Amino acid sequence: MPLTMDKAALDAFLVEQFPQVAEEFVIDAVEENALKLRLVVSERHLRPGGTVSGPAMFGLADVGVYLAILAMIGPRALAVTTNCSIDFLRKPAAERDLLAEVRLLKLGRLLATGDVLLHSVGRDAPVARATLTYAIPPA
Amino acid sequence: MPLTMDKAALDAFLVEQFPQVAEEFVIDAVEENALKLRLVVSERHLRPGGTVSGPAMFGLADVGVYLAILAMIGPRALAVTTNCSIDFLRKPAAERDLLAEVRLLKLGRLLATGDVLLHSVGRDAPVARATLTYAIPPA
Amino acid sequence: MPLTMDKAALDAFLVEQFPQVAEEFVIDAVEENALKLRLVVSERHLRPGGTVSGPAMFGLADVGVYLAILAMIGPRALAVTTNCSIDFLRKPAAERDLLAEVRLLKLGRLLATGDVLLHSVGRDAPVARATLTYAIPPA
Amino acid sequence: MPLTMDKAALDAFLVEQFPQVAEEFVIDAVEENALKLRLVVSERHLRPGGTVSGPAMFGLADVGVYLAILAMIGPRALAVTTNCSIDFLRKPAAERDLLAEVRLLKLGRLLATGDVLLHSVGRDAPVARATLTYAIPPA
Repeated sequence: MPLTMDKAALDAFLVEQFPQVAEEFVIDAVEENALKLRLVVSERHLRPGGTVSGPAMFGLADVGVYLAILAMIGPRALAVTTNCSIDFLRKPAAERDLLAEVRLLKLGRLLATGDVLLHSVGRDAPVARATLTYAIPPA
Repeated sequence: MPLTMDKAALDAFLVEQFPQVAEEFVIDAVEENALKLRLVVSERHLRPGGTVSGPAMFGLADVGVYLAILAMIGPRALAVTTNCSIDFLRKPAAERDLLAEVRLLKLGRLLATGDVLLHSVGRDAPVARATLTYAIPPA
Repeated sequence: MPLTMDKAALDAFLVEQFPQVAEEFVIDAVEENALKLRLVVSERHLRPGGTVSGPAMFGLADVGVYLAILAMIGPRALAVTTNCSIDFLRKPAAERDLLAEVRLLKLGRLLATGDVLLHSVGRDAPVARATLTYAIPPA
Repeated sequence: MPLTMDKAALDAFLVEQFPQVAEEFVIDAVEENALKLRLVVSERHLRPGGTVSGPAMFGLADVGVYLAILAMIGPRALAVTTNCSIDFLRKPAAERDLLAEVRLLKLGRLLATGDVLLHSVGRDAPVARATLTYAIPPA
């Protein structure tokens, strides 16, 4: 199954549909059933001790899976997250961006599920992992 | 097991430790192993279609369980979330605050787990549910 | 929304559709959006140390939510679990049956989600909690 | 960090500690922070329609992560599962064994977390994914 939206199309969609958060995210790569999304970490994402906040990590994983799905099926702004499980494994490095590596495990007619590994750019050990399921509205 | 921190103590802790987000949250009630936390919904929490964003709901549940634990064991700013599962069930009402009803299911020496139901104020049907586990640092 | 299947109808369904496991389970109560299911604990459910095995607890929660859904929508043997999160909180008492208290949080056209608290009969503290989502096939 | 238990040591541990289930499982491979465990599917694991039951898949993932942890830290029969999230993605092939590919994401002093992909032997598409966290007792 080929890509329906390439990186340029996803970039444009992000700016148009999510103007509040588009500037925080950079799509680093997109291919069939996989996508890399980077959170440009700034003051607003930090918590006491200099760590990236849980909601910021959740949001990165959530947007990453969403864009990976749209890359395959095209722009449907109404796909909604139905479930997320997330494990926080290590403290992220505060002075580094956070990279989400997304892999779609299922892209069904009604439900899509993606796995995400998050790590600080330049570090191997994952700081978190997440799985998200989206309900896909009829085309 | 009696409360170690009452509502006034938790209010003060929130302002001191989380100045970035303290104004978004109101502690509506606290008792043994239970707490009600309200998200004062404003423009920054909304997404296209007027719905409250996923990260905002995650953050509400996360802070709610954290405060419920601190109410029991006292202020330990370094307790960290290790795991969260969250199910998004219905679209929240955009023009209403979001209420998290937290119940601690376990308060162990090393791990604490809390359940959360989220609903729009004045509406019965839950918009989300979440369970969060925290690792508790040695006293 | 009234019940579509009462306790007698669910009992019969369980025996007919799940002969391998029907004898392990007793439906203790059923009402709108809620059900109590008991696991009759025997040797086969135990693990070293006399505790009830994780798969046995998972199965109890899974069947409990399934029956709670069927009680509302009628017999559809093809509803399938899409997601489960489960937290193991305390060691169950080996010499006691395990009771699952199920509450449906959402019963949509395509997805249904139920929450479960598990505890040893006669003990208050929960040994586990779980949330399960089922995909419902078209009627 | 080298392996503390090799395949032969894990095989022996499984037989000794879990005689009830040891014959159902085959360790196909073990290396640092990774393990492949196979469920020898038989009648007892099947459900109506010929699919492998949810509890059987949960049990496979649970034992797989447990053995992957023990391979690293040595035999500690008292490590306990604290949390599992599992997504059921596709119907497994009933006539084929089920393979769990386990990868440890974190091996801390108190908590260890592993990711699992399950697929029917000879098929690429995953039938389920799971993440499990274990609490590790003091050495």
